[in-house]
Amino acid sequence: MPNASLDTLIAQFAKLPGIGPRSARRIVLQLIRKKDPLMTPLIEVLQAARDAIVPCSICGNIDTSDPCTICADERRDASVLCVVEDLADLWAIERSGMFKGRYHVLGGTLSAIDGRGPDALNIASLPPRAAAAQIEEVILATNITVEGQTTAHYLTERLAECNVRISRLAQGIPIGGELDYLDDGTLGAALKARQTF
Amino acid sequence: MPNASLDTLIAQFAKLPGIGPRSARRIVLQLIRKKDPLMTPLIEVLQAARDAIVPCSICGNIDTSDPCTICADERRDASVLCVVEDLADLWAIERSGMFKGRYHVLGGTLSAIDGRGPDALNIASLPPRAAAAQIEEVILATNITVEGQTTAHYLTERLAECNVRISRLAQGIPIGGELDYLDDGTLGAALKARQTF
Repeated sequence: MPNASLDTLIAQFAKLPGIGPRSARRIVLQLIRKKDPLMTPLIEVLQAARDAIVPCSICGNIDTSDPCTICADERRDASVLCVVEDLADLWAIERSGMFKGRYHVLGGTLSAIDGRGPDALNIASLPPRAAAAQIEEVILATNITVEGQTTAHYLTERLAECNVRISRLAQGIPIGGELDYLDDGTLGAALKARQTF
Repeated sequence: MPNASLDTLIAQFAKLPGIGPRSARRIVLQLIRKKDPLMTPLIEVLQAARDAIVPCSICGNIDTSDPCTICADERRDASVLCVVEDLADLWAIERSGMFKGRYHVLGGTLSAIDGRGPDALNIASLPPRAAAAQIEEVILATNITVEGQTTAHYLTERLAECNVRISRLAQGIPIGGELDYLDDGTLGAALKARQTF
């Protein structure tokens, strides 16, 4: 094996999602082969990102400013809040380009098994936000998993007195989906929520 | 999409081998979620590695000292030189634990297509090293590819007057190999080089 300093570097890369010891070795090899064109820029952008990013005190998004770009953007629709579990979900919805409102990032789901209660999540600030005069709708865009749906139900109760419309994402057949390959749950949900053609 | 600073970081990660834009996004997400336990240590070990690593002026290996740990290690067999194309090959042979001599890292292969001649590689210092009194054998451990073998033939000529035994790695069936799945070239080489049982 190489030496202590490179071993530590390989081990550190192997901690990143989707990277095993073998890919970590390939990456480190490439980095030390291309020290100036690859390694130095990577260190610089990592440092810049570490120093710049802060959590948004309004919605829980992570950005280089607080309030984040989305909360600060006056052109976004201030009447709709989209509640997501995680930063990754916020990015996914932003990539779709279909949502022009603002977000509320929970930072996870309620989980009895992992012992995560409401206090472990960014929930306390949601009812006051939703109760603000300009908010008309709160979309609960948690994942369609047991924990995501449990969290959504809990939030429905917490938001009951806020006088806002509470909605959730449509469940049904994904675009390009073939009935034959779909699970029964999805097919059932799609049948139940069928729409007039 | 997130913001400029994170976009740059994602783009930089996507330049690493085996990482596409999607995995780069997952990695960056994980890094900014776990700033202190993951991002800061990564930056630190990257910096430490960048500042510490230097090419070994004797063999071309990359290490935190010059001469490298292998060249400086008195317990290693000073009579055998193993010529490899690349750092990755040196690491692979070290992992096997079967070689106790020293190395010579070429930094690539000769290639007419890519216009890489002997001057572009770490070849000039090889004949003097091989001609040293204590060297008895030079193992040409270049890859079994057209370019690797061309390079090996070229080196044989360059080392002709050095009065050392020149050897190459055995070609044949890999451990665990099944004849049915082997290419004709390997099977032919294994037949030709057959050994008494």
